[in-house]
Amino acid sequence: MAQTVGILGGGQLARMMAIAGAPLGLRFRVVDTVKDACASQVAPLICADYNDFDAITAFSEGIDVVTFDFENVPADTAMFLASRVPVFPNPQALAVAQDRLEEKQLFQRLGMLTPEFATVDSREDLEAGVAKVGLPAILKTRRLGYDGKGQVRIKSKDDLNAAWAKLGDVPLILEAMVPFEREISVVAVRGRGGEFATYPLTQNFHQNSILSASLSPAPNTGAIQETAVGYARRLAEELDYVGVFALELFVHQGRLLANEMAPRVHNSGHWTIEGARTSQFENHLRAVLGWPLGGTEAHETSVLLNWIGEVPDALPVLSEPLGHWHDYGKTPRAGRKVGHATFTGPAAEVAAALGRLAAALNRPDQIEPVLEAMKA
Amino acid sequence: MAQTVGILGGGQLARMMAIAGAPLGLRFRVVDTVKDACASQVAPLICADYNDFDAITAFSEGIDVVTFDFENVPADTAMFLASRVPVFPNPQALAVAQDRLEEKQLFQRLGMLTPEFATVDSREDLEAGVAKVGLPAILKTRRLGYDGKGQVRIKSKDDLNAAWAKLGDVPLILEAMVPFEREISVVAVRGRGGEFATYPLTQNFHQNSILSASLSPAPNTGAIQETAVGYARRLAEELDYVGVFALELFVHQGRLLANEMAPRVHNSGHWTIEGARTSQFENHLRAVLGWPLGGTEAHETSVLLNWIGEVPDALPVLSEPLGHWHDYGKTPRAGRKVGHATFTGPAAEVAAALGRLAAALNRPDQIEPVLEAMKA
Repeated sequence: MAQTVGILGGGQLARMMAIAGAPLGLRFRVVDTVKDACASQVAPLICADYNDFDAITAFSEGIDVVTFDFENVPADTAMFLASRVPVFPNPQALAVAQDRLEEKQLFQRLGMLTPEFATVDSREDLEAGVAKVGLPAILKTRRLGYDGKGQVRIKSKDDLNAAWAKLGDVPLILEAMVPFEREISVVAVRGRGGEFATYPLTQNFHQNSILSASLSPAPNTGAIQETAVGYARRLAEELDYVGVFALELFVHQGRLLANEMAPRVHNSGHWTIEGARTSQFENHLRAVLGWPLGGTEAHETSVLLNWIGEVPDALPVLSEPLGHWHDYGKTPRAGRKVGHATFTGPAAEVAAALGRLAAALNRPDQIEPVLEAMKA
Repeated sequence: MAQTVGILGGGQLARMMAIAGAPLGLRFRVVDTVKDACASQVAPLICADYNDFDAITAFSEGIDVVTFDFENVPADTAMFLASRVPVFPNPQALAVAQDRLEEKQLFQRLGMLTPEFATVDSREDLEAGVAKVGLPAILKTRRLGYDGKGQVRIKSKDDLNAAWAKLGDVPLILEAMVPFEREISVVAVRGRGGEFATYPLTQNFHQNSILSASLSPAPNTGAIQETAVGYARRLAEELDYVGVFALELFVHQGRLLANEMAPRVHNSGHWTIEGARTSQFENHLRAVLGWPLGGTEAHETSVLLNWIGEVPDALPVLSEPLGHWHDYGKTPRAGRKVGHATFTGPAAEVAAALGRLAAALNRPDQIEPVLEAMKA
């Protein structure tokens, strides 16, 4: 009989999960606080607050497994669901990833290098933190941040009062701003039986603190490949993690520094839909259902371009034989991820297509850094 | 703004079209005579008879283009819709493909070889037909046949009375049974601006007159490749066809004989979901929407296995890194296509995976002919 997967959160990650699961005969049920969340176009959606335990109870009836579209589901809700139905990743893993401080402390316990950091619970802590990690630094809320939200850069001591005024009412972490050469992510998957696999390392590019592009495989990762995969595996095993997750790493002076973990399918893995044997979305579903994992190899080069705010003209992408178009069906809004494009093929052909696209869409700032990295 | 595609027919072809269109931001609306047709799991479905013009009118409101999941939509319905909204393929092309006699006559007009055939509208015609095409032959209804339905094999003159008793109340065609070496299909796509592309030729395998497996690229097609693609192109241009279609060809003594045309996405093209740059489903949507066509190249070998009647145990397929599982969400029933699996990868690895699968599922009759063909 058809199995039904419940998803907390109804954004584009839930949407792409439902699209990936449909061929497998899976059914879906989604909860979101917004009625027209974009996953509702492809799966039945229950509109409810995550703290509405009556609604969460109704949601849980008759579903086979619960998973997440985003990591900020209240821990109580995850725990409540876990008492009724299998929940993957497990609520404890989710809780660790929800807190930047716990996460960084875990990285250190597991022997992973990280940027310097300090706990900041008071104005005095902030002074002490600056003394410890140095400047420039970045002050972040420990919880609920994403895409550059909930953080302030501190360049000099003159910025401290403003930073404290902006964020000081919640627990914080101060992190050294590492002048890293590049950011890479490991998108990994672990099954219910402990099977573990990773996709090729991916190099990430940002604009305004939001992922703007990804390139996979990341070039020249010979020296860091094994360390990166080892970090991801250690983390997954420590958390008894089940499903797909991403580990973001800075490359600084040839060393890897663990930045953060996303306990879910990840934007830097969207290229796997066309570029890998099995997409991250299908592999996440396979993992949480206890099925065997699908192949994670990629034999070609893939470049992902994020559409932020609104989708551009589709024609230049659709006109490229290597181009794949994704529109999440969301209403345009500044800073919102509304779609992406993926180019998959031989590296030289992908680069040529991107060159044409940069001109056609007039987006040199988004595309040229990727082309630079591909030349390296 | 999001475009909405209307589909007449809500089977697995509509289902796979809707799944392929969701990433593109497309919306769908499906009409079927059965409320729980399997496309209803992934798209809104209107349950109505195709001759219910009130329902068809309601269906057509606000949709951008209409296409088909199956070729036996009444011509009047297609014409009615075409007066209200763009319909692709055009109703005339559909009408030709609905009638085995008109279709074969068209093949001949276009200079394509076909098996011998004769029109049979009376018991006398049947005698005359046998004299013309020889025995063994196959008597078929001109309209509404598929998967071996509406046809009777005639081995000797002793079979004539029974054949006539079974089918004689509708217009018929008698076709020579050609002892062909193999069946090949060309899955082709033509855009609204006349752009034309084909997928690699596919070799098809049958059990009980139903497609059981497909292998692409078909081996050793050097001598017939150009002819096959030329046939498909001529047909598409003659019909001003827009969308994906399949042309089934027999290979007999090194020559190609045109058997039939399917004016829609086709079972022998399901492997394109994983095996080609752009799936037949996405390319059909691109074509009917007037978008540029996506790449049709395949760089690896793909084998499709059809699940007929019921889906087997999924585990042996899911356990193969090259294996992809498709379950159409249909109720099991003898002779019904309920799912498929695709294996895509280097030919030797695909063959090894199939060998393991033949044993695990105990399906030598389905899989060994494919392995034989791969050795050729």
